[in-house]
Amino acid sequence: MDFTTLSHTVDEGVLTVTLDRPEQLNSFTTTMADELERTFRDANERDDVRGIIVTGAGRAFCAGMDLTAGGNVFGLDASLRPGFDDLADLDGESARAVRDTGGRVTLAIHDCRKPVVAAINGAAVGIGATMTLAMDARLASEKARIGFVFGRLGIVPEACSSFFLPRIVGLDKALDLILTADILDAHAALDVGLVRAVHAPEDLLAQARALIDTWTLGRSPVGVALARQLILRNAAASSPLEAHFADSLAMFWTSIGDGDEGVHAFLEKRSPNYGSRASEMPPFYDDWIARSSARRLSD
Amino acid sequence: MDFTTLSHTVDEGVLTVTLDRPEQLNSFTTTMADELERTFRDANERDDVRGIIVTGAGRAFCAGMDLTAGGNVFGLDASLRPGFDDLADLDGESARAVRDTGGRVTLAIHDCRKPVVAAINGAAVGIGATMTLAMDARLASEKARIGFVFGRLGIVPEACSSFFLPRIVGLDKALDLILTADILDAHAALDVGLVRAVHAPEDLLAQARALIDTWTLGRSPVGVALARQLILRNAAASSPLEAHFADSLAMFWTSIGDGDEGVHAFLEKRSPNYGSRASEMPPFYDDWIARSSARRLSD
Amino acid sequence: MDFTTLSHTVDEGVLTVTLDRPEQLNSFTTTMADELERTFRDANERDDVRGIIVTGAGRAFCAGMDLTAGGNVFGLDASLRPGFDDLADLDGESARAVRDTGGRVTLAIHDCRKPVVAAINGAAVGIGATMTLAMDARLASEKARIGFVFGRLGIVPEACSSFFLPRIVGLDKALDLILTADILDAHAALDVGLVRAVHAPEDLLAQARALIDTWTLGRSPVGVALARQLILRNAAASSPLEAHFADSLAMFWTSIGDGDEGVHAFLEKRSPNYGSRASEMPPFYDDWIARSSARRLSD
Repeated sequence: MDFTTLSHTVDEGVLTVTLDRPEQLNSFTTTMADELERTFRDANERDDVRGIIVTGAGRAFCAGMDLTAGGNVFGLDASLRPGFDDLADLDGESARAVRDTGGRVTLAIHDCRKPVVAAINGAAVGIGATMTLAMDARLASEKARIGFVFGRLGIVPEACSSFFLPRIVGLDKALDLILTADILDAHAALDVGLVRAVHAPEDLLAQARALIDTWTLGRSPVGVALARQLILRNAAASSPLEAHFADSLAMFWTSIGDGDEGVHAFLEKRSPNYGSRASEMPPFYDDWIARSSARRLSD
Repeated sequence: MDFTTLSHTVDEGVLTVTLDRPEQLNSFTTTMADELERTFRDANERDDVRGIIVTGAGRAFCAGMDLTAGGNVFGLDASLRPGFDDLADLDGESARAVRDTGGRVTLAIHDCRKPVVAAINGAAVGIGATMTLAMDARLASEKARIGFVFGRLGIVPEACSSFFLPRIVGLDKALDLILTADILDAHAALDVGLVRAVHAPEDLLAQARALIDTWTLGRSPVGVALARQLILRNAAASSPLEAHFADSLAMFWTSIGDGDEGVHAFLEKRSPNYGSRASEMPPFYDDWIARSSARRLSD
Repeated sequence: MDFTTLSHTVDEGVLTVTLDRPEQLNSFTTTMADELERTFRDANERDDVRGIIVTGAGRAFCAGMDLTAGGNVFGLDASLRPGFDDLADLDGESARAVRDTGGRVTLAIHDCRKPVVAAINGAAVGIGATMTLAMDARLASEKARIGFVFGRLGIVPEACSSFFLPRIVGLDKALDLILTADILDAHAALDVGLVRAVHAPEDLLAQARALIDTWTLGRSPVGVALARQLILRNAAASSPLEAHFADSLAMFWTSIGDGDEGVHAFLEKRSPNYGSRASEMPPFYDDWIARSSARRLSD
């Protein structure tokens, strides 16, 4: 796949994905959606990548959907309307045309086996804001601006943001951010709990890398992927019993895998030498992902 | 319908609902429940209303259930007991007698197509406190007092408060507020995250109106209703995939509706002129409401 | 049952459970799991107990799983692997061997009819940290240290912690705590929202008792159990309608029970004299617990 909207670099196990249309303030297109979805799905198979940073080229992170095509920027065909009146109709190849493009990206981030950190270097508006909610942390430059501006355009928040936002900032603040539809500066975003920290622009990428290192260096690749997925899944579990089933499977498999080495290394006061690879997850993992995310669909 | 416990005024698109039994500190009765439920359901059909403020007449907001009828204030008939031992029995007309009256009100607020702001002018106790949790924001006068006092009466919190409260303040604070059953002053309520802000008594209604204006002036009526419902629904969604289905439907319908005008207006640097009316929601909307809220019941 | 890892005292209705292997820093064993599970299930039948404090003997709260047995500390048998590839296989007696032991404890805490307060007197690491998340409040001594250190051992967080943690601190902080796997001091734990308050070591147990007293003295035993369970259940409910069904049942039963006395006592300005006993819950209660927690399993 030749990427036209993104650039990729891998440095010591950290993949940096740069939204790379600086002349267009890295505005989002269906091509960028395809390329981001592909990037996160491919990263699952790349054992040389332990974590991912997403940032923007130039002065913006992502200024939202590219509106230069005019009104029908969403690529949606009104003639499809009669067939899509309820929730059941979005499965299947023919329905791909009406699936929210931002959601295709955030479902791929949700399914990713590596932690993902947003390094928000500038304006993150619309899909530029919502795509970061599916990432494991949001670090903001002092120049960051974050806005869920959908209400100003007569449309609704997307990219599964209504799933993630109330779980990050609480239901009342989520309602307010979406209904107000304002653009927040970095410190306002910090105050409302949207971002983890605010950094000087020149420190942003180093801080994102340091966080990835803290989370992944010397850790079990399968253990990190399963721990991340346990939190994401069970934040939405219907009961602790549901979590208990998932815990038991994940603990069983890690304890007969890297956990055995981890405990021995701890007792022997040495660094562990884990053998697992995230490209090979336990057999139940595909089922986890299928139940909660995009694998249930036919793409 | 003649209202005996409420008064209504509409001013430039904002409906103010006043709990209006000041001699009884606006205490809650089954008549008030019926009138509130009717108010919020009727507002869905009123295109001249873009937002709703709820406040109290006199010095209280709502002092809780009217206890002057003595013990059986809940209007419940103990002889019904044999028939209502499990969750499945509450559907159907005959079960209406055991349905929590507060919940009938908060389900109507949840289903409302217009944002609802609580302007808590004084004591909000019991159902006076829990009814506000289903509203989109709580603004407190310095004279507000908020108490989930059910535990002091040997009863349990109601009005779906156990759904909303942990999603607003977190699980641990929700447990503490309910188990402690204390009455908080306005600043304590602000500290625990129950209210958005504390205002001087004379500023309260103007602040509530300003918030409604921020959320609704110049906005798409259908877009606002769908955005609000996306947040409320997906705060409880079982997975991001479930949110993705809902997002896709809502984005599809708004993008071929007010979104088309919204994008053109943005590009032409003019104010949008939206044509949608919240009295006519997209075909999937009734199904959304039916799955999550009171329409599933036979009332 | 003779307890070998715990000691129990009951003082004026408050059961204090002390993790009592001080030479081993109260590290967790399968025997301790069995004894804790038994303790919380037995407490449901003990009407002389209105609340429970959990603390540790000596300088630690619980230093995590006892690792002195070497690698296979989890008591798991890798030969069981072929049979346990998906979620459906954990039910039934034969599957008990792969059920997470920490989860057996936290499900028993979740099902408990009495509020449970963690008095974290020292190190609470691994299962020592996660078991407290299912409790109603965490009070920390200034000497407390709390760490979700699973990632350092190549394993995953357990004990339903991925259900509770995001609902207490939010999704983003839960991901960070689990992925970072650091040990926090008491004030850092307070800052992130993990603990309710930090106390001087000599005040810790008195503060825990005071909180239990606030929550339970003069209260309806059945009312407290139902209120606690409503919050825990509906924090994970799929919709307010689901909460409304549960509310209606609980309000109906308490209003024809202790609520009748509670209202009369309030009107007569006297202390209530409740007659209910938590050993006898309403008929729907077992069904509640069965749907959400360990009763669904065959143990």
